[in-house]
Amino acid sequence: MITVSVVGGSGYAGGELLRLLLQHPKVKIKEVTSRRYVGESVTLHHPNLRGQTDLYYKNIDKLSSCDVLFISLPNGVSMNYMDKFTKLAKYVIDLGADFRLNSESSWSKWYKTEHQKPDFLNKFVYGVPELHRNEIIKAKLVAGPGCEAIVTILSLFPVVKHKLINLDKIIIDAKMGSSQSGSKGTDSSHHPERSGVVRTYMPSGHRHTAEIEQELSFAGFNPKVSITATAIEMVRGLLVTIHTFLNKYIEEKDIWQAYRTEFAKEPFIRIVKMKSGFYRFPEPKILQGTNYCDIGFEIDKYTNRLVIIGAIDNLTKGTAGNAVQCMNLMCGYDEKLSLEFTGLHPI
Amino acid sequence: MITVSVVGGSGYAGGELLRLLLQHPKVKIKEVTSRRYVGESVTLHHPNLRGQTDLYYKNIDKLSSCDVLFISLPNGVSMNYMDKFTKLAKYVIDLGADFRLNSESSWSKWYKTEHQKPDFLNKFVYGVPELHRNEIIKAKLVAGPGCEAIVTILSLFPVVKHKLINLDKIIIDAKMGSSQSGSKGTDSSHHPERSGVVRTYMPSGHRHTAEIEQELSFAGFNPKVSITATAIEMVRGLLVTIHTFLNKYIEEKDIWQAYRTEFAKEPFIRIVKMKSGFYRFPEPKILQGTNYCDIGFEIDKYTNRLVIIGAIDNLTKGTAGNAVQCMNLMCGYDEKLSLEFTGLHPI
Amino acid sequence: MITVSVVGGSGYAGGELLRLLLQHPKVKIKEVTSRRYVGESVTLHHPNLRGQTDLYYKNIDKLSSCDVLFISLPNGVSMNYMDKFTKLAKYVIDLGADFRLNSESSWSKWYKTEHQKPDFLNKFVYGVPELHRNEIIKAKLVAGPGCEAIVTILSLFPVVKHKLINLDKIIIDAKMGSSQSGSKGTDSSHHPERSGVVRTYMPSGHRHTAEIEQELSFAGFNPKVSITATAIEMVRGLLVTIHTFLNKYIEEKDIWQAYRTEFAKEPFIRIVKMKSGFYRFPEPKILQGTNYCDIGFEIDKYTNRLVIIGAIDNLTKGTAGNAVQCMNLMCGYDEKLSLEFTGLHPI
Amino acid sequence: MITVSVVGGSGYAGGELLRLLLQHPKVKIKEVTSRRYVGESVTLHHPNLRGQTDLYYKNIDKLSSCDVLFISLPNGVSMNYMDKFTKLAKYVIDLGADFRLNSESSWSKWYKTEHQKPDFLNKFVYGVPELHRNEIIKAKLVAGPGCEAIVTILSLFPVVKHKLINLDKIIIDAKMGSSQSGSKGTDSSHHPERSGVVRTYMPSGHRHTAEIEQELSFAGFNPKVSITATAIEMVRGLLVTIHTFLNKYIEEKDIWQAYRTEFAKEPFIRIVKMKSGFYRFPEPKILQGTNYCDIGFEIDKYTNRLVIIGAIDNLTKGTAGNAVQCMNLMCGYDEKLSLEFTGLHPI
Repeated sequence: MITVSVVGGSGYAGGELLRLLLQHPKVKIKEVTSRRYVGESVTLHHPNLRGQTDLYYKNIDKLSSCDVLFISLPNGVSMNYMDKFTKLAKYVIDLGADFRLNSESSWSKWYKTEHQKPDFLNKFVYGVPELHRNEIIKAKLVAGPGCEAIVTILSLFPVVKHKLINLDKIIIDAKMGSSQSGSKGTDSSHHPERSGVVRTYMPSGHRHTAEIEQELSFAGFNPKVSITATAIEMVRGLLVTIHTFLNKYIEEKDIWQAYRTEFAKEPFIRIVKMKSGFYRFPEPKILQGTNYCDIGFEIDKYTNRLVIIGAIDNLTKGTAGNAVQCMNLMCGYDEKLSLEFTGLHPI
Repeated sequence: MITVSVVGGSGYAGGELLRLLLQHPKVKIKEVTSRRYVGESVTLHHPNLRGQTDLYYKNIDKLSSCDVLFISLPNGVSMNYMDKFTKLAKYVIDLGADFRLNSESSWSKWYKTEHQKPDFLNKFVYGVPELHRNEIIKAKLVAGPGCEAIVTILSLFPVVKHKLINLDKIIIDAKMGSSQSGSKGTDSSHHPERSGVVRTYMPSGHRHTAEIEQELSFAGFNPKVSITATAIEMVRGLLVTIHTFLNKYIEEKDIWQAYRTEFAKEPFIRIVKMKSGFYRFPEPKILQGTNYCDIGFEIDKYTNRLVIIGAIDNLTKGTAGNAVQCMNLMCGYDEKLSLEFTGLHPI
Repeated sequence: MITVSVVGGSGYAGGELLRLLLQHPKVKIKEVTSRRYVGESVTLHHPNLRGQTDLYYKNIDKLSSCDVLFISLPNGVSMNYMDKFTKLAKYVIDLGADFRLNSESSWSKWYKTEHQKPDFLNKFVYGVPELHRNEIIKAKLVAGPGCEAIVTILSLFPVVKHKLINLDKIIIDAKMGSSQSGSKGTDSSHHPERSGVVRTYMPSGHRHTAEIEQELSFAGFNPKVSITATAIEMVRGLLVTIHTFLNKYIEEKDIWQAYRTEFAKEPFIRIVKMKSGFYRFPEPKILQGTNYCDIGFEIDKYTNRLVIIGAIDNLTKGTAGNAVQCMNLMCGYDEKLSLEFTGLHPI
Repeated sequence: MITVSVVGGSGYAGGELLRLLLQHPKVKIKEVTSRRYVGESVTLHHPNLRGQTDLYYKNIDKLSSCDVLFISLPNGVSMNYMDKFTKLAKYVIDLGADFRLNSESSWSKWYKTEHQKPDFLNKFVYGVPELHRNEIIKAKLVAGPGCEAIVTILSLFPVVKHKLINLDKIIIDAKMGSSQSGSKGTDSSHHPERSGVVRTYMPSGHRHTAEIEQELSFAGFNPKVSITATAIEMVRGLLVTIHTFLNKYIEEKDIWQAYRTEFAKEPFIRIVKMKSGFYRFPEPKILQGTNYCDIGFEIDKYTNRLVIIGAIDNLTKGTAGNAVQCMNLMCGYDEKLSLEFTGLHPI
């Protein structure tokens, strides 16, 4: 049994963490902090946890020590507290962007600010178990990936590694749910405005480009990715349609082979490419609350294009579930503990 | 051709007014005010009007004279400006609640504040053309009804007048879209929170009770209504399910008779009670943008209950469209001018 | 460990049963039948179960013996097989309507057919653990309640028992999701037609009236209920707004007292009546996949009305989850086994 | 005043045609046919037209002569009737695919059947007024484009003509509403299955490829397009995100220049690229019921990509509205007649 605390527990990622940790057989949640809601019950913002917990928000300054500390703060905030956090806890898992990138210059380039704690950048392991399992097992500090980043990286890793695609033209057309923008209401997230949109809020310039290129730049590869993000009518969920071009004439069985080679034993990756049924390719709606990353693909022989489709729940495999998976690895538990929810259908 | 100005044009009712007035063949829009957005294009908030107008918001203090002035301000605000408004315009149509009630005490009871302009209360005609057409034709001042109020009043008026129902137990179960709460975003209207709700935000105590009882208290009737309001997944639209009990044993043809007697010639009321098809009873989704009030009913012989179903678009017949209908009457135009949009299907 | 089989496993209730049973620590699923899909993988229709099972549909005629048999067939079908079912299994839990009513005449009245197995009617226990726990513990045959019925019965039971409301005027305004109509597509369930509806498909005449009145007719009570069912934009979930009138002047604390007395120890009932937050009353969206029945209420002093609000997931507490709860009781397991999913937020 | 008939009037495109034609000041609708619903009122399937028409469906074999005949039949059907149609009417506008392609071999390649009326292929003008206005004005036979095709062609035409993009790598990521698949319900369009999807139902192989390449192959251009179609939670509406790569270094003002040069005077094309507000780029939700095609773009300097975003209502500019625009041109009317609905907001 370990003690776990959550810094920034009133947001959506924090709430999802609490949901998963409360049902974890090896975890006791010790403290939850919130800057805005000190003294209030965590169930005020997370009504699904009613009857599950009597935790109240504490001030971050009153945080005491614990075994594992999860950090869910806005980008640029946790770097200012990291000295403190690493003193308080044996293991720190930061869900934000602050320690995802390996280089200070990359941070400055994409986040347009100076990094306050560059010496920590190389101490953090990038928390994708499917790529860095052995490092995570040994790590004390893990940086959870961005949600578009993790689904894109997992979707592309096998075909990059097996040298199947052209690395110059990788287009990621991301379809996003509204929970991705956080728990604070704004005029643009007002239901009458946000409802039913197909809103291309970021045609280019997405910061997750940096993480994706970093993680796919191994073995001398140097891929260049183009992201366009479109918000659609969905709360939880994220689907990326990745348009790539094949290096040479290959068959779909070659693609199958690449995914199977890399992911056959992965507990949370499923290759979804059915010949019948309605759910022939990955779909985020049946992944809500699960830690799966479903991946599918199709070769477009007409233009020698390979379309790869990746789907996750942005709050689970995209954030909190993946973080718990990392914690399980770091603490020596079964990787799947508390992450075995299968998802609902219909929904 | 008349000149028309809109006070409070950045909200949803204001935007719907602009949409209808811009296409009105007898109207020139002179000015639009907004307290928050002085100097900005009206198309910033009303993107559907792009290419239709080059109007900019003015400060309410700079408002000049016009023929017809529409007021769309928060409850309790227009009463403070009414002296000014009546000097600026020949006709004033107030979409807010300030002048709907005939009595100062009723205002105090339901709105919990003192009325600042009680002498005007009896100068305003309550703007339901189907009940007060002749008064509206002669009126200079009209108060537009609340959206739940108008659909409820129209649904009940014939059966009250024809003495078909018990006036002591009238239950209005209202299903509301999100546009009804205005254009300002809040944490509770944040898309992830508001999406997919079946949220009974007001089980009792709805202020529109006052208007409804006022309008149905004619010819000695003294009805008592109970409203429960539930927000559902919908942006535009409002449906009331009205549960009443019959006074005596009657057949559905008697109900038909009451509605036909009162409403057969009404251009915007349709009795919807089909034997086949999917749209057998009124449904708000096909009324979006229209000025219709669709009304249906069914007798529950098991408990001698009469279920009445009324549907409108809360921004059109529920607010702006009905106000334009009043303007048409006040100014001597065809009542239907600019209100003949039939609605979309599918949608 | 017990063996369990599911008759009629391709529908939504069947799929939800499989989801819950697959994760049940004491259960091994032996067989699943489908009349239409013999030989196909159960994951074809239940894509959330991919990777969880390799079960295939069998023909109902090939069904072998097991410990517990769940029946999920259209109304009127299971009565023809009940002799066979009771021979095959020690415990039978029928999710359909065939054995819910105690009397043959009640069946004929509401279902308009003759009952084929009337001698079994009194052998089945009506499967609401909160009312019949001790009988269920001893039962071999349990009839699962209708989804509107169970949420209505649980919402009303305490206030009926404590004699707080008038039993003559009980109005149930039910808001329904689309999964309630089953898994077969029709022209009326076609997405462009069903999407965004507020469709009062059954203003009166709902068959669940019979079950509700049966279960609330204890201790000499003889309540009369009126149901109106309206389909809204929702897949999973059901909310009933129950309009009742108080017998006498009472305070909300008296209502609290009634619910607490009856339900304080119930693992799956929560009284939800908050003073702050967005989720002040029950809401089905955060109950998706859970076995909770959330109940709230408010007194309308203006008309002496008591509004009761009950919410469930129609496929879980409304059907399959409640059936698993019954199985746990019948087999001597912890009542909560495999039913502890807390629900998701946001969703 | 002209007489107009509609063949295949019970579907969604037929219904949208009826809506537009009923309000057209120069049109009298003479007959409407349906193979399945002979003798039924057209309002059964088009409830928005209640009170607007008393038309009934006729059998196609009973069709009499008229001035303009609109054809809305499944692909491959109208070619069998075209001899008859051209005898009955002076002008024929076919909304289906049969006569969109100029070459018999292109039809066989993409539609996998033999064309039954190849001699007519070159008699039809492809009905995009913005590209073929002068031909349409003189035409007797017009083939309405596919909905993905028209929005893609309009979005790309200026940048192709002005030689701004690489023609080898044009990726069209289309987001589709459910009305696009027609009015017939299926198991896959069943609300619980179709609701909330992000369903890539056609990663490659889209037939509209043929039309798009045909129309953009002018002046020696020979573009190659790759389409991926994803169904999302939306009934009406279509958005294409087009990923292209620039030929050389250019600025956004050069793109502006190309669009302005080609489309500045087009009544139904708006370039949407705002610096503020929530609707900064095209969005289909505010185009419902309108004949607009909104187009926006952004240069991604990081990868020299040009992202073009095009939005329409698939049933209006995507089908019926555009067909009425063609009819207006063919008959010498103001091109905008009956097409001036501005769209709703919020919605």
